[in-house]
Amino acid sequence: MENQIQELTKSITVPTGPIAQVQGNLDQLTKPPGSLGELENLVLWLGKCQNTETPKADKKQIYVFAGDHGVTAEGVSPYPSEVTAQMVGNMLSGGAAISVLAKSVGADLTLVDLGVLSDLEPHEQLLMEKVKKGTANFSKEPAMTDRETLQAIQVGFKVAKKAKSEGADLLGIGEMGIGNTTAATAIYANLLGLNPVDIAGAGTGLDAKGITHKAEIVISALELHRPTTAFDCLAKVGGLEIAGLTGLCLGAAKEQIPLLVDGFIATAAALVAIKICPAAEGWLLFSHSSNEQGHKKVLAKMGVTTLLDLQLRLGEGTGAALAMGLTTQALELYYGMASFANAGVSDRE
Amino acid sequence: MENQIQELTKSITVPTGPIAQVQGNLDQLTKPPGSLGELENLVLWLGKCQNTETPKADKKQIYVFAGDHGVTAEGVSPYPSEVTAQMVGNMLSGGAAISVLAKSVGADLTLVDLGVLSDLEPHEQLLMEKVKKGTANFSKEPAMTDRETLQAIQVGFKVAKKAKSEGADLLGIGEMGIGNTTAATAIYANLLGLNPVDIAGAGTGLDAKGITHKAEIVISALELHRPTTAFDCLAKVGGLEIAGLTGLCLGAAKEQIPLLVDGFIATAAALVAIKICPAAEGWLLFSHSSNEQGHKKVLAKMGVTTLLDLQLRLGEGTGAALAMGLTTQALELYYGMASFANAGVSDRE
Repeated sequence: MENQIQELTKSITVPTGPIAQVQGNLDQLTKPPGSLGELENLVLWLGKCQNTETPKADKKQIYVFAGDHGVTAEGVSPYPSEVTAQMVGNMLSGGAAISVLAKSVGADLTLVDLGVLSDLEPHEQLLMEKVKKGTANFSKEPAMTDRETLQAIQVGFKVAKKAKSEGADLLGIGEMGIGNTTAATAIYANLLGLNPVDIAGAGTGLDAKGITHKAEIVISALELHRPTTAFDCLAKVGGLEIAGLTGLCLGAAKEQIPLLVDGFIATAAALVAIKICPAAEGWLLFSHSSNEQGHKKVLAKMGVTTLLDLQLRLGEGTGAALAMGLTTQALELYYGMASFANAGVSDRE
Repeated sequence: MENQIQELTKSITVPTGPIAQVQGNLDQLTKPPGSLGELENLVLWLGKCQNTETPKADKKQIYVFAGDHGVTAEGVSPYPSEVTAQMVGNMLSGGAAISVLAKSVGADLTLVDLGVLSDLEPHEQLLMEKVKKGTANFSKEPAMTDRETLQAIQVGFKVAKKAKSEGADLLGIGEMGIGNTTAATAIYANLLGLNPVDIAGAGTGLDAKGITHKAEIVISALELHRPTTAFDCLAKVGGLEIAGLTGLCLGAAKEQIPLLVDGFIATAAALVAIKICPAAEGWLLFSHSSNEQGHKKVLAKMGVTTLLDLQLRLGEGTGAALAMGLTTQALELYYGMASFANAGVSDRE
């Protein structure tokens, strides 16, 4: 399987667009150099990825990948697994937080079923890509086989290719899957060498006892499976939606589309993508620090910073959507502000 | 003068709107309780200030107060004073960062001339409220007389009253005034007992030597004037636009309109307002942590947190405008999301 992943990712290179020119343009605008901070960095990143001095974010797409988790049998979430399918329905009918925020920032929202337990009704915003009905309970057996993991990753590449063909300028990712903070915690512990006790958090609302139990489940699962590679880790303790998002992160890099990563779970998918192919990292921007206990430690260990820290812990791509709004505003400034010369404003003495 | 300020502020009370009901409404939405973090806090704050379960931000207004600073004669800014008037012109013609962002978030932008050195041309978005042409050089004499300071504060109250009569739901404040980071640094050092060396920063782009010089100017000015009250501090080492914004912060509290404070300079105006009338604080929300060295220390000393930390150091109300965008999104979520009951989503077990 890993050979097939190598084949899929071999054309990925780091983004090398004209950032000096973009910086030059930014420095002519009527403001002290660098004073728009992260908003300037957003324009530079888009220019670097889109390989142009005139980046855009006209066509914005948010993809929410959904899947269920066998490990919920261990009582790691206060919500029942059926909520995964119910929330997909809620997203499609416009009532979920990500539905509201995608509309607010002018992004198209697409749901992708990678592994929801129940059969979902067809919908124009839903891609049917179910690999299987939920992962196995990874406290007892591997969450997925290698073949299932590869298949989920391939869905991500397929979605990226579709996005490219539709002319997407900017992607955002999110997820829905009751139990998936437990899978993400296991991935972080394994790939970053962090102690599960330090990074297991409340998820959708566990109490202290529940969090301790979650950490114990992760510790014993990692002892049982002892993953040997990032791909193996994803298969043994990951999730179908997480594997799909790993594929979408890699696929976006392959198709050369910048992508905004969401919070605790989406970051785990991005981490696996970066471990598989380090060149993918430049195409990804981490939108926010989640209030999920552990996310900040994970980000620090990964050596990445985020745009926002709004104490969100909802997932669904909500942080990525808010960052999309900021990206749009950064471009509005880039194209809408006057230059010192045009505005007749004196530059520094 | 201080008696007149007492008279102006005596009707200010802390906001006491129905936050329990707003929280109840938020908790019925299809998300784990509290998982929208600061976005939920924004809705709660609006409900508290507007005294309603159904807060709104339909009519948003941003006020940028402008004034010049005599202390620029000491070489505390790399830009010449003439840039204050030039940038006011740029804001009015739509080319400044705040022009772009106000439009982006659907806010009306109004400039207020409290003390620009030159005579400005009339403009429908410009209020002519010049108290005098720039402050005196506070390294040698008081920046303003008590009477001038009161007059500038009264402009702020007048603007707040006008905003109320126009039906403003939410205000944002910003400033333009070459040299005003020096005045703000002096205010912080005096009112918070901070060492100017620890809080003086680059402003629009001073080098290390320039920053040291700025701190020395502040230290010697405070030794010269030894302010005795917040009002006295504002008069001796403040600025016309800062005093005007202090008045607007107090006036917003009096008129019961929530107000988003911008960065390093606007926070100094808010600090003076809170020192004059502590009950005003509940009407103010600090939108962002500036990249201006010292702002985070000031915010910590004041015991307040901010929504955003985007490494901005531009002023003009840019951080307040971005926070206005988030406020709009918070309300979109509050009114647009489905409840667990309506969406048929199972709540926690």
